[in-house]
Amino acid sequence: MIVSALLTSVGINLGLCILFFTLYSILRKQPSNFGVYVPRLLADGKSKKTSHFHLERLLPTPGWLRRAWQPSEEELLSYSGLDAVVFMRLIIFSLRVFSLAGIIGVFVLLPVNCTGTQLQQVDFSNLTNNSLDVFSISNVNNGSKRLWIHFSAVYIVSIFVCYLLYSEYKYISAKRVAYFYSSEPQPQQFTVLVRSIPVSVGNSVSDSVESFFKEYHPSTYLCHVVVRRTNKLRDLINDAKKLYTRLIHLQTEPSRPKFKRDGCWGLFGRKVDLVDHYEKKLEDMEENVRLEQSEVSLAGEEARAAFVSFNSRYGAAIASNMQLSINPTYWVTEQAPEPHDVYWPFFSKSFMRKWISKIVVIVACVLLTVVFLIPIVIVQGLTNLSQLEIWFPFLKSILTITFVSQVITGYLPSLILLLFLKIVPPIMKFFSSIQGYISNSEIEKSACNKVLWFTIWNVFFANVLSGSILNQISIFLDPKNIPSKLAVAVPAQASFFIAYVVTTGWTSTSLELFRMIPLICSLITKPFTERTDDEFEVPSLPYHRDIPRVLFFGLLGMTYFFLAPLILPFLLVYFCLGYIIYRNQFINVYAPKFETGGKFWPIVHNSMIFSLVLMHAIAVGIFTLKKLSLASTLIFPLPVLTLLFNEYCRKRFLPIFIAYSAESLIKKDREDYNNATMAEFFDSLATAYQDPALLPIKYSANPDSRSSPLLSSAEFET
Amino acid sequence: MIVSALLTSVGINLGLCILFFTLYSILRKQPSNFGVYVPRLLADGKSKKTSHFHLERLLPTPGWLRRAWQPSEEELLSYSGLDAVVFMRLIIFSLRVFSLAGIIGVFVLLPVNCTGTQLQQVDFSNLTNNSLDVFSISNVNNGSKRLWIHFSAVYIVSIFVCYLLYSEYKYISAKRVAYFYSSEPQPQQFTVLVRSIPVSVGNSVSDSVESFFKEYHPSTYLCHVVVRRTNKLRDLINDAKKLYTRLIHLQTEPSRPKFKRDGCWGLFGRKVDLVDHYEKKLEDMEENVRLEQSEVSLAGEEARAAFVSFNSRYGAAIASNMQLSINPTYWVTEQAPEPHDVYWPFFSKSFMRKWISKIVVIVACVLLTVVFLIPIVIVQGLTNLSQLEIWFPFLKSILTITFVSQVITGYLPSLILLLFLKIVPPIMKFFSSIQGYISNSEIEKSACNKVLWFTIWNVFFANVLSGSILNQISIFLDPKNIPSKLAVAVPAQASFFIAYVVTTGWTSTSLELFRMIPLICSLITKPFTERTDDEFEVPSLPYHRDIPRVLFFGLLGMTYFFLAPLILPFLLVYFCLGYIIYRNQFINVYAPKFETGGKFWPIVHNSMIFSLVLMHAIAVGIFTLKKLSLASTLIFPLPVLTLLFNEYCRKRFLPIFIAYSAESLIKKDREDYNNATMAEFFDSLATAYQDPALLPIKYSANPDSRSSPLLSSAEFET
Repeated sequence: MIVSALLTSVGINLGLCILFFTLYSILRKQPSNFGVYVPRLLADGKSKKTSHFHLERLLPTPGWLRRAWQPSEEELLSYSGLDAVVFMRLIIFSLRVFSLAGIIGVFVLLPVNCTGTQLQQVDFSNLTNNSLDVFSISNVNNGSKRLWIHFSAVYIVSIFVCYLLYSEYKYISAKRVAYFYSSEPQPQQFTVLVRSIPVSVGNSVSDSVESFFKEYHPSTYLCHVVVRRTNKLRDLINDAKKLYTRLIHLQTEPSRPKFKRDGCWGLFGRKVDLVDHYEKKLEDMEENVRLEQSEVSLAGEEARAAFVSFNSRYGAAIASNMQLSINPTYWVTEQAPEPHDVYWPFFSKSFMRKWISKIVVIVACVLLTVVFLIPIVIVQGLTNLSQLEIWFPFLKSILTITFVSQVITGYLPSLILLLFLKIVPPIMKFFSSIQGYISNSEIEKSACNKVLWFTIWNVFFANVLSGSILNQISIFLDPKNIPSKLAVAVPAQASFFIAYVVTTGWTSTSLELFRMIPLICSLITKPFTERTDDEFEVPSLPYHRDIPRVLFFGLLGMTYFFLAPLILPFLLVYFCLGYIIYRNQFINVYAPKFETGGKFWPIVHNSMIFSLVLMHAIAVGIFTLKKLSLASTLIFPLPVLTLLFNEYCRKRFLPIFIAYSAESLIKKDREDYNNATMAEFFDSLATAYQDPALLPIKYSANPDSRSSPLLSSAEFET
Repeated sequence: MIVSALLTSVGINLGLCILFFTLYSILRKQPSNFGVYVPRLLADGKSKKTSHFHLERLLPTPGWLRRAWQPSEEELLSYSGLDAVVFMRLIIFSLRVFSLAGIIGVFVLLPVNCTGTQLQQVDFSNLTNNSLDVFSISNVNNGSKRLWIHFSAVYIVSIFVCYLLYSEYKYISAKRVAYFYSSEPQPQQFTVLVRSIPVSVGNSVSDSVESFFKEYHPSTYLCHVVVRRTNKLRDLINDAKKLYTRLIHLQTEPSRPKFKRDGCWGLFGRKVDLVDHYEKKLEDMEENVRLEQSEVSLAGEEARAAFVSFNSRYGAAIASNMQLSINPTYWVTEQAPEPHDVYWPFFSKSFMRKWISKIVVIVACVLLTVVFLIPIVIVQGLTNLSQLEIWFPFLKSILTITFVSQVITGYLPSLILLLFLKIVPPIMKFFSSIQGYISNSEIEKSACNKVLWFTIWNVFFANVLSGSILNQISIFLDPKNIPSKLAVAVPAQASFFIAYVVTTGWTSTSLELFRMIPLICSLITKPFTERTDDEFEVPSLPYHRDIPRVLFFGLLGMTYFFLAPLILPFLLVYFCLGYIIYRNQFINVYAPKFETGGKFWPIVHNSMIFSLVLMHAIAVGIFTLKKLSLASTLIFPLPVLTLLFNEYCRKRFLPIFIAYSAESLIKKDREDYNNATMAEFFDSLATAYQDPALLPIKYSANPDSRSSPLLSSAEFET
């Protein structure tokens, strides 16, 4: 790739970004788009859907930038929770790392690379005609003493990254503890989930739980809720909900036909009032649901799991930390998730099915990650011009136009790859959901890890180690040659990844702001549905999609900063864009769906450590290749020290992210001793972990008197 | 190797075994050898050192066999503890496995191998002239359908081993729990060791511990003992002890000169009564010790560690299972070891030194394991004939005798290897002792693991994968070719390992019975020392030497049973010998020095799983080599299933060996509620973990009145 090609790409994408920004700043001011651009404010009642028209609404204004910039971290914390803060810290961390790396790279390494003559002389008279390779380490002469500058840069940046990683881990641990101290009493702090409850003949699970905890935790045990198998019930309720939505639409939209004939295909028979018809059907359904609910509550539909609540956080923590039963496979405990975070479908599975599905999921993930590119390459092969002409003969005349054929051959393959990549996060989330996690937050965390490794393999390694899958894998089965192979392959792809940062990075971030897909969805569905504000669902940031993306750019920056420092300015632009855009989205768009208390940070930390070690491996290879074997030997302590540093962090910080300490639990418990509202809170614990499917439903017009809801139906949405 | 050579070797070693047995049955009846052969009975007072002479004492009798056979497992348990039972279960387990494998191997596989013609026809007319290879799988024709018999054998034995492993694990877990239930209240059950205690300025460690546990565990905290740095003190006490021993010898042995001159080299000056002289010196030393003791007790010689005792087992378990402090590197807790099992020197080290020494030890172990053979090969090279002739010219005439030169070239190298191997367990134990373990039992457990992997590498792999070290390691860095390389290399060494079982296995076991080295030591030292019975030390079985040895023979059997079934009868003989001999030793010789409650079993389990998977890897390679690729494909599920089985066992049984469950702790605590002796026991807790170096010493004739000992000086010995 030559400089001019890069500049073209930068120009196009810069144009796209400016276009999206402009469109955003206009569209967000239209009340009809509030549901897309400021759903959060809408839900909070801060924005009204209707407002008077004035000219300013049609002009692009940068006011949102200022508003996104303003809030302090404390405000963000109180508004969007600790997870959002952690996500922003990730971007700030990257900004810091690549600011230093950028300064070193652009002002020190780049001139050194340019003055090398290994590949060719830099043609300063016609800069745009130079190959990008002359700016990379490949251009430094073999065995040149100048490589020691690169060597020092690797050391400086590694130490800086480790220092930042340490201080960030410390900062976020402190935030997590402070968050816990400042939190109101929450059900999950007092509750553990117990699984694999052994049941003696003639006893119910509930009896078994009660007698066990009264026997062994008499002073702390409070109450419990046995989990029930509610798959069938959940289907029934969903059907009822759909019918209810339809009914509401009928009632609120005067334009719709309200009658149909009751014969076959609605053609014959007498006219029926549709509203009446649906209401009757809904009542029947609700009766069904109620029957099923009482059946589930009575009969042996108990799963062998229960949420057990205690009268202190410390009591709950003891129960979740200790091995309760002599047989370690019985009475397996873990800290309960937030009540609305529980992933209920999970409990319907038996132990064996869960175990098998876990193994199947692991195998499926590995297979998907390793062989993902095969079908894509095949599909891409099918879309070449001659194939298209055979399939769609009528396109022949269009395909002969040079521009069209260029677009198709140039963009179609990468578009197909991009579309396939888009569906990976949902697939990984689906995999995680059947893997046996009990809460949505855990599913998202696990999916985050899966997507991260998937991206690293399929975007980084698949591009770097071109060739067949078997060939790629065989490189990793031959560990001692990894550095030398990487050293050859990685720099060769520098220009590809610079372009990747510009195209995928910049565009994806501005698309995140523009919210293309929700906008299109809203435009399509708006004419047909008039959503009521009650039903309106505020989206939450899919961490499993966005964290791996940011981390992957971090990996690119870390591995390329000394190979091809030209990548760094583009990365810095990406992170700056990300900083302002995600802040804006947290304020306007995304509401937290759950609160893990910063549990995503260990994933970030591990990924950064991996990037560092990968960088060191490449450095070893590069210095060997460049015939500076002393430098490649002297790099060796670096990965060892990095891994030792990681080991220290695992000891020092990781436990904080797994469970709270006795000290903080007891302190927090003592604070509550004199709290008058605790009695009320303890009462609420008895129903906090009620399966939402077992709550009375109240859709039909004449609600049954029996069904006084314990929690509002809004609970279904969360 | 041909059959006759094997028979010769068997003959020689059988002869040696019979010789050792005979000598043993005579020598053990001599009262002068009671200290070597029945130290345990002697210590218990069941045997007297003096007895009247009668003729039977000079005849070999098999009575000890009957006595070793008799005791039931319960008797062994009550007499030698659970660790001895676990060791015997290991031998019983091996006996069972190799009985089945032996039946299949000798009666099914051996005939199949013999009737093959791949290598050569078996010459039935002159059996002893056949190569041993004709009895191995190498003799089965390539692609022969008969290989399916081997295939089935692999499956049958794998399933049988897994079944046995499961039932043994279950049995020993049950034993462990039962052992806990039946145990008297013991200090270690009520105590945790706390390390990394943070100390604020102006406070002592003791204050810090007291305020922390009174604050956060007010209802269960009982008392604590702060650990002090006593390295210097321990040296002083050792010196005093040596002097005391010398003094005793002087006093009890009338033959010794009791005077010396007090000038230089004892030549000039006036005569001094040695007894007086030593007594005075001893008194001085004791005074020094007492000064140092009071200094250590007063000043800032506190290590940042303390033994904290609780008033219930459950309370102690909570403290050791929970993360106590917000900073996970402070207040690090673990279950305390038995008081006499504590490895006191350990506490003298600072945290950083401990961490560094741990890393150093790991590196040293890996290095020792990997490069162990290099110095040996060099030393062996130095002992060839021409070298010897150059060094010791006077040997020239002797070395020309054929027999002598044969012995030297044939036995010297293997003798050197054997001597080097002998010093490995002590080296590994030394490594473990500086690695940071707080108890002798943990040190021994860790050394056991180290010796096991050392043996597997340096005896199995070094023999199988001959060639340079780098060559051997490179095989493991190329994982996909491991099976094919093993398949070629492992069967080729079959005859070597058969001979190894016979020579090393049989002889080492009968030497264990004969106790050659202790016997020699006793014979040498007896004329000079007359040990008093008080001082007499009963040895304990060095598990880190014997468990790896037995496990290694298990690995040999597992990997060779389908390759060269001829190994099985010899192995069975080895295990039978082991069974009867170790029972005898537990009854007569070894006293338990500590009680881990069966914690050695997980090591056994892991080693067996490794042997199984290794066997499967070899099977895959062999069937590929034998051109029966379907069979090699069908073996693949076996290692996967084995590892899944192992995973299940880790979940089901391993936690039982790490900590006791809340259920059993609470049950046991409740039993003690009404126990009147508990108050007394709790009082004793305050001093149970006193550093023995801080106890008053009472060697000199006129004991100081201040020094009323809390524990007897016998404590020093245990």
